[in-house]
Amino acid sequence: MKHHVNFTPGPSQLYFTVADHARQAFKEGIPSLSHRSKRFEQISKETTDGLRELLAIPAGFHIFFTASATEIWERIFQNLVEVTSFHLVNGSFSKRFHEIGIQLKKNAKKTEALAGQGFGNEVALPDDTELIAVTHNETSTGVSLPVEWIHHLKEKKPEALLAVDAVSSLPYPAFDFKLVDSLFFSVQKGFGLPAGLGVWIINDRCVAKAEALAAKNVSIGSYHNIPTLLSHAKKNQTPETPNVLAIYLLSKVVADFLRRGVESLRKETEYKAAILYQALEKNSWTSPFVKEKQFQSKTVIVADCQENTEKISAFLSSRGLDAGDGYGSSKKTQLRFANFPAHSKEQYELLVDSLGELKV
Amino acid sequence: MKHHVNFTPGPSQLYFTVADHARQAFKEGIPSLSHRSKRFEQISKETTDGLRELLAIPAGFHIFFTASATEIWERIFQNLVEVTSFHLVNGSFSKRFHEIGIQLKKNAKKTEALAGQGFGNEVALPDDTELIAVTHNETSTGVSLPVEWIHHLKEKKPEALLAVDAVSSLPYPAFDFKLVDSLFFSVQKGFGLPAGLGVWIINDRCVAKAEALAAKNVSIGSYHNIPTLLSHAKKNQTPETPNVLAIYLLSKVVADFLRRGVESLRKETEYKAAILYQALEKNSWTSPFVKEKQFQSKTVIVADCQENTEKISAFLSSRGLDAGDGYGSSKKTQLRFANFPAHSKEQYELLVDSLGELKV
Repeated sequence: MKHHVNFTPGPSQLYFTVADHARQAFKEGIPSLSHRSKRFEQISKETTDGLRELLAIPAGFHIFFTASATEIWERIFQNLVEVTSFHLVNGSFSKRFHEIGIQLKKNAKKTEALAGQGFGNEVALPDDTELIAVTHNETSTGVSLPVEWIHHLKEKKPEALLAVDAVSSLPYPAFDFKLVDSLFFSVQKGFGLPAGLGVWIINDRCVAKAEALAAKNVSIGSYHNIPTLLSHAKKNQTPETPNVLAIYLLSKVVADFLRRGVESLRKETEYKAAILYQALEKNSWTSPFVKEKQFQSKTVIVADCQENTEKISAFLSSRGLDAGDGYGSSKKTQLRFANFPAHSKEQYELLVDSLGELKV
Repeated sequence: MKHHVNFTPGPSQLYFTVADHARQAFKEGIPSLSHRSKRFEQISKETTDGLRELLAIPAGFHIFFTASATEIWERIFQNLVEVTSFHLVNGSFSKRFHEIGIQLKKNAKKTEALAGQGFGNEVALPDDTELIAVTHNETSTGVSLPVEWIHHLKEKKPEALLAVDAVSSLPYPAFDFKLVDSLFFSVQKGFGLPAGLGVWIINDRCVAKAEALAAKNVSIGSYHNIPTLLSHAKKNQTPETPNVLAIYLLSKVVADFLRRGVESLRKETEYKAAILYQALEKNSWTSPFVKEKQFQSKTVIVADCQENTEKISAFLSSRGLDAGDGYGSSKKTQLRFANFPAHSKEQYELLVDSLGELKV
């Protein structure tokens, strides 16, 4: 397994520096470091400072560590929605985000697009929307909503908070933080790290909303409500004992990304996506599942392979290239290819060459 | 730092096999393993099977993975308390458990004992108690409540659920699962692992309670409510992408503990505790903070050192022995010594010998 390239969109292939960073962490005693120590505060600050630089996060935004992006879905409803949220649902993950609102007894409204499709400019945002919830990149179908279109949602309804699930796209997309209130991701996708850490970025408007709900005696949760997360984050700490090793590893990979340069990462992502989409078009046995170019994800590329899915997967695997299965009911008809910084140009070129030699 | 022994009660010293297990995990591709794969299900099953054997957990109990024990506090209120819980508070952690109930808008009642003390048999459990919450081992003060006394709470009020926080004592105490409904811990204490994983053990009565609350339209949370955790646990999966690496490492350390034998671990714990308490008594500059023998913790031993605290800590550190600070307001007057399986007999003997040579 270790010589295979893992194209599953998450947990995905580790960034190539991670094993060395983990070895160093054990040498330095990081896994048994107290989360109330100065050294932990320093690691935590390096991580958030690095993320601020990498993603161009301005002042007035706060960065919190959680256990997963799934946890962040829950925290968003508890802290940012008194009654009504509005969801753009176009796949399994945006659907799950919406369902969690229902489970938490919120009036979670939605508009739906078919699998493989995005949304047009006609989307109407209900008047009582407190929070707009949108999934930038649907890991299940490979649909990515254009960043400008997401910004446009905020311009349409500036009084609502806009929360963007960027789980399987960051660090690729460049969001304008003037037009986003909350953004979140987990580290086992684009950051190429072991699973077990979510990162939640919020602005002061989110803090004010959580405080207003608490003042109204709405339960906003306990150890991971926004005021508690914030008071600890100001000291570069966390309310509970966190996944210290994961925070350390994130600080190291963010530093590696910064050394490569985010623009270079983005260009490489676009190059790799372009050659794979081209190969999927050219090949008689495959086609991109997402037809409209504007919605084709750069970071999770889904191939429609129909009855040849298993054969293609086996052929690629024989070349050391492990495609991800299609999601859910598409398991037998699609393959998914993560295109993260951990996937090198050379690995993508090998994938494209292999697809060129494919005969089913 | 790496040659020092870390006696801080958590995150504490790693069990001596952990670094090797982590290296092996990276070799086997565990950190990028899909949590929906057969291999993950197998690791998850190994972990829960091992815990069942180690802690003698009978059928009718379920084992769930969470992010931390702090998270489990929150899940207990959401899933097991409609209105009223009752808390035995005798230190900072039992206090925090109680406060989380208040934050989650439950009628969390309590009885309090002074720091360093336990409870007598006169504790009255209010009639409307749905859940009794007790902290077996107060990490802040080194008070451990006798296991038989905890069982007695259940006998006093069998219709209430009994939830035991065993964060800083397991695997040492042997609970009788006929007299406990829910038990939980986190892995960075007695299991000697990196922080970032909580383990929640519940019985079918807890499942029934959560289902009854859901049927009454009480919000029991979302991805980590008991019915969702249970349906995934039955497949040896988790609802969200978990800390896969931590679950793997736990499976390995539990297997190591089983090879040593839980009885041998328990005897060694008692031996180490006995020689340290004796040394603290003998030494003119130290005394056990917990005076009553029946409440003296075997796993977190707190030394009252008053004005000599800093000197004693520095002296021990010069011998490569890093004591934990006293908790909170006792930081300048107490030292804490974790006595976990990761702390060897030889390390404890060195600690005791060093205390014998101490001159302040």
